[in-house]
Amino acid sequence: MPDLNLVVAEIADEMRQRRDRGTVAHYIPELARVDPKHFGIAVVAADGTVATGGDAAMPFSIQSISKVFTLTLALGRYGDRLWRRVGREPSGSPFNSIVQLEREQGIPRNPFINAGAIAVTDLILSGHQPREALGEILSFMRFLADDADISIDETVAASEQRTGFRNAALANYMKSFGVLENPVDLTLGVYFHQCAIAMSCQQLAMAGRFLAQSGRNPSTGLQVIQPERARRINAVMLTCGHYDGSGEFAYRVGLPGKSGVGGGILAVAPGKASIAVWSPGLDAAGNSHLGRVALEALSRRMDWSIFGA
Amino acid sequence: MPDLNLVVAEIADEMRQRRDRGTVAHYIPELARVDPKHFGIAVVAADGTVATGGDAAMPFSIQSISKVFTLTLALGRYGDRLWRRVGREPSGSPFNSIVQLEREQGIPRNPFINAGAIAVTDLILSGHQPREALGEILSFMRFLADDADISIDETVAASEQRTGFRNAALANYMKSFGVLENPVDLTLGVYFHQCAIAMSCQQLAMAGRFLAQSGRNPSTGLQVIQPERARRINAVMLTCGHYDGSGEFAYRVGLPGKSGVGGGILAVAPGKASIAVWSPGLDAAGNSHLGRVALEALSRRMDWSIFGA
Amino acid sequence: MPDLNLVVAEIADEMRQRRDRGTVAHYIPELARVDPKHFGIAVVAADGTVATGGDAAMPFSIQSISKVFTLTLALGRYGDRLWRRVGREPSGSPFNSIVQLEREQGIPRNPFINAGAIAVTDLILSGHQPREALGEILSFMRFLADDADISIDETVAASEQRTGFRNAALANYMKSFGVLENPVDLTLGVYFHQCAIAMSCQQLAMAGRFLAQSGRNPSTGLQVIQPERARRINAVMLTCGHYDGSGEFAYRVGLPGKSGVGGGILAVAPGKASIAVWSPGLDAAGNSHLGRVALEALSRRMDWSIFGA
Amino acid sequence: MPDLNLVVAEIADEMRQRRDRGTVAHYIPELARVDPKHFGIAVVAADGTVATGGDAAMPFSIQSISKVFTLTLALGRYGDRLWRRVGREPSGSPFNSIVQLEREQGIPRNPFINAGAIAVTDLILSGHQPREALGEILSFMRFLADDADISIDETVAASEQRTGFRNAALANYMKSFGVLENPVDLTLGVYFHQCAIAMSCQQLAMAGRFLAQSGRNPSTGLQVIQPERARRINAVMLTCGHYDGSGEFAYRVGLPGKSGVGGGILAVAPGKASIAVWSPGLDAAGNSHLGRVALEALSRRMDWSIFGA
Repeated sequence: MPDLNLVVAEIADEMRQRRDRGTVAHYIPELARVDPKHFGIAVVAADGTVATGGDAAMPFSIQSISKVFTLTLALGRYGDRLWRRVGREPSGSPFNSIVQLEREQGIPRNPFINAGAIAVTDLILSGHQPREALGEILSFMRFLADDADISIDETVAASEQRTGFRNAALANYMKSFGVLENPVDLTLGVYFHQCAIAMSCQQLAMAGRFLAQSGRNPSTGLQVIQPERARRINAVMLTCGHYDGSGEFAYRVGLPGKSGVGGGILAVAPGKASIAVWSPGLDAAGNSHLGRVALEALSRRMDWSIFGA
Repeated sequence: MPDLNLVVAEIADEMRQRRDRGTVAHYIPELARVDPKHFGIAVVAADGTVATGGDAAMPFSIQSISKVFTLTLALGRYGDRLWRRVGREPSGSPFNSIVQLEREQGIPRNPFINAGAIAVTDLILSGHQPREALGEILSFMRFLADDADISIDETVAASEQRTGFRNAALANYMKSFGVLENPVDLTLGVYFHQCAIAMSCQQLAMAGRFLAQSGRNPSTGLQVIQPERARRINAVMLTCGHYDGSGEFAYRVGLPGKSGVGGGILAVAPGKASIAVWSPGLDAAGNSHLGRVALEALSRRMDWSIFGA
Repeated sequence: MPDLNLVVAEIADEMRQRRDRGTVAHYIPELARVDPKHFGIAVVAADGTVATGGDAAMPFSIQSISKVFTLTLALGRYGDRLWRRVGREPSGSPFNSIVQLEREQGIPRNPFINAGAIAVTDLILSGHQPREALGEILSFMRFLADDADISIDETVAASEQRTGFRNAALANYMKSFGVLENPVDLTLGVYFHQCAIAMSCQQLAMAGRFLAQSGRNPSTGLQVIQPERARRINAVMLTCGHYDGSGEFAYRVGLPGKSGVGGGILAVAPGKASIAVWSPGLDAAGNSHLGRVALEALSRRMDWSIFGA
Repeated sequence: MPDLNLVVAEIADEMRQRRDRGTVAHYIPELARVDPKHFGIAVVAADGTVATGGDAAMPFSIQSISKVFTLTLALGRYGDRLWRRVGREPSGSPFNSIVQLEREQGIPRNPFINAGAIAVTDLILSGHQPREALGEILSFMRFLADDADISIDETVAASEQRTGFRNAALANYMKSFGVLENPVDLTLGVYFHQCAIAMSCQQLAMAGRFLAQSGRNPSTGLQVIQPERARRINAVMLTCGHYDGSGEFAYRVGLPGKSGVGGGILAVAPGKASIAVWSPGLDAAGNSHLGRVALEALSRRMDWSIFGA
């Protein structure tokens, strides 16, 4: 087996030299300012080894990667009743499409497109004040990453709140079908703030360990979720984690993963490692271009594809 | 590790007793006559062990499962140029939807929906007579299954040809965009015949071994395709193999698989086993209901999910 | 030529006896309480004759009929620049569909579906306070109807504001494409209030006279709009005035018209009459059932179809 | 009232000088060869006056204008039962869209888009040989135009038959829902031939007289169809006669009309005139650009808009 530290260092070096970097998301003004030259990678192996490269310690806006954690939280609270509010099929549409909602009575296709994540956030909010709900999400992230130094970037949150009309359209649309319980602006407030959580690749890879280790948090030895639920979250990440580029990611990388428009990707090699990469430039489907390229190299060199040796 | 023979026998027994059997496909008249009570299962493990249960030796119409094999054949001939004609993203639509084709200039979303498989068949046909193309497909199946006793059910093929207007619509639509090269009726003729191949679970599980074994055919020791290509075909099966029920199958079963409206499913546990199940009753998305239930049980009891222990 | 008073009296009588009354709109709670037995009709002929029948003097919520008047106002202020924000083609979709907006970059198909009317209201609001914009709309209605006794039903407006999530989705969606200039909630506030204007058939038929008389208001002799503009508004009413039932209305009635979910319809027989009918029960496309039936009878008996003798 | 001959001569002259001519349809190879500089106009007034200009005597391919005549024929044979097979609402989509058919179980939106016209042709074919059906259509055209010298351009028909894959997709799609009764290739054969009828503006304007004159053919004095049916066909022409440019045509021209991709338009001024124009260059919606411009000028100068003086 190849040496993980060596492979990670090689990949960080290769990514540094590449010129094809995709396009930084421009529809959230605050994100548009991020330097496209950043690249970070962090891998936490099953044995606890941590290998990092590039800007692995630099915090970035995790954006939609938060959807993995809010799904986990909401499943913990509601169990399979959650699936009455959101499906688990790939959407075949861009991340912010509203067409599917009209066809399917306001039920979003899966929890990893914007509409689905808003529906999940609405569940977490129910019975709470927005501030409490956000506190719970943040505490969960800190607990999983075993790191108290994770916070919300209020500037990004405010930027999204000012410009998030498309998400407001999705939320109001679902509300018109009764899919949301709380006032639309409260649900959106929590959603915009959870997307604005800032984390480094190191923190993110730590936070993702439970998905690689049958639901267990190795820092505490606690079972965060049952093994079957961890498998199932991984399955949804594989089929739906990269919007309308999910098939491509499965084809090239062969690992469950979830991307965010901040340029981060969290990937899981079940039983082997939790991985986070970050490069702000996106491809046409809204996923980090070099992030995907790096994960493809890592998966191949470490022989981690879930689809066979 | 649980005993495979025992597990397979248990599952066959449990399936025999279940009353929820789905609905036999009625849109192909010849298939509508099949008795919904059939259930078969065959598992070929990596070590060569074969475990079977129920009607494992009874031939059935493999229908869309043939798409896995024609994709393999066409990739062998055209390599990655094939992907100019067909995508590899889940469709988010029923198996025979034409809406997506209008939105995307006649390029089908993936090779496992009808439109995509017709485009792949058209590639195989190019430069050949229909009879030759069909002969090649059949020879490939016999070679993979190591069994000369596999043939086309001409009654089923004729039944599809007489009633396959929706597939004719898809083919003509693609032709109008220049996605098909051959005369529409010739391409459709080959397509309807490949769908009408009759095989038993035993034969099908044998034919699928190369996908579980890094592209190698254990009967001959020959490398059918490169390991990376086997992984990638598995990835496409996982994200697209069950039409608009692909997310559900990944979530519940956790294995790459391809279903057919004849009620068969071919599934792959990479490095571990090739599996075929058959039960004619379908669920709403057009996939074998008990087939999926049986695979879910098998995957859980053998701990074969690709998404973690 | 048949006697208008007689024909109107006959029709009012026939409508009173019919049992097929459609279904009262239930999605605006306040409207759901209206008694489905009401029927009113008022016709103002070109010579000034006024013929009425049934509940012609009872005010009802004009809802989308207001869209004709806000379009007229906005055309007066912006001229043909208005058409940069909204198209003039039938939508082929229900009145509150959002699908078309995604396909066409947030530009609504015409000013008579909800999205289009919201875009028109947004234009009227620009440079004004909501209260001023509403005042202008109301003054215009009073001027056209030559009747100071027209007002907004605040209970209906509040009911719509509380439950208008689908309209909020449409407005936010357009805002995300830059089609709206003002804050979404302000534009929606004006929109919900204009829809809540209460008028009787008599008032409405008076207000519609300028469309039947080449843009002239006979009360004052003033030219409200140029003759060509009146013709063009009539044309848009004919092709788009009844949502996805516009073809049916043209086919059966043969007059330009605009319906509202309150059960009213304003129709125009160019050069001959301005007509208002009201019956709260709607058909599947959201148009007054008996209103359409009554107009079909009127048009046939008076020989008023614009499509030939 | 302005002099018709003078107005027609002026318009022919103005059109000759214009440079904006649209784009000749290229998807039917045979039509792509037509010189875009042609322009013809013919007006048959209610009093029998015939005014012509430009290439009014030159035959061109009437294409979709034939749909008006096959609709008339089929209504004559089937009456309102025809409407079980085809709707009468504008489609909100391009002329050859298949999306709507999937949403509405194979029932085309109206008889003037391709799918709808194919369904109407299928009705005319039922119980006949294709040659008989075509003969009946041709005889009907000759009878209406009072001119035996109208025929089918076999080269155009063959060109369409070779390349009409999109129409074949539409037909097969409808067949899969049982909307067509006859073998798809027979129905398409008749359809392609009816589209390939060649007529001059003079012949076409003569053939359209019955729609301007309450259903009467002035040559014979015979009532071709009842007045109400003539009105209703005019209504469908107004709302659906120009594909997804129907709203625009109503807005600008204010007359019922039907266009064809050969560049012809038949328009009707009820009670006043039957009009045919021809200019091969099309606009983005597939309607003759100069044809529409000429009709707009004619309608304005003669004050013929149905939407008011």
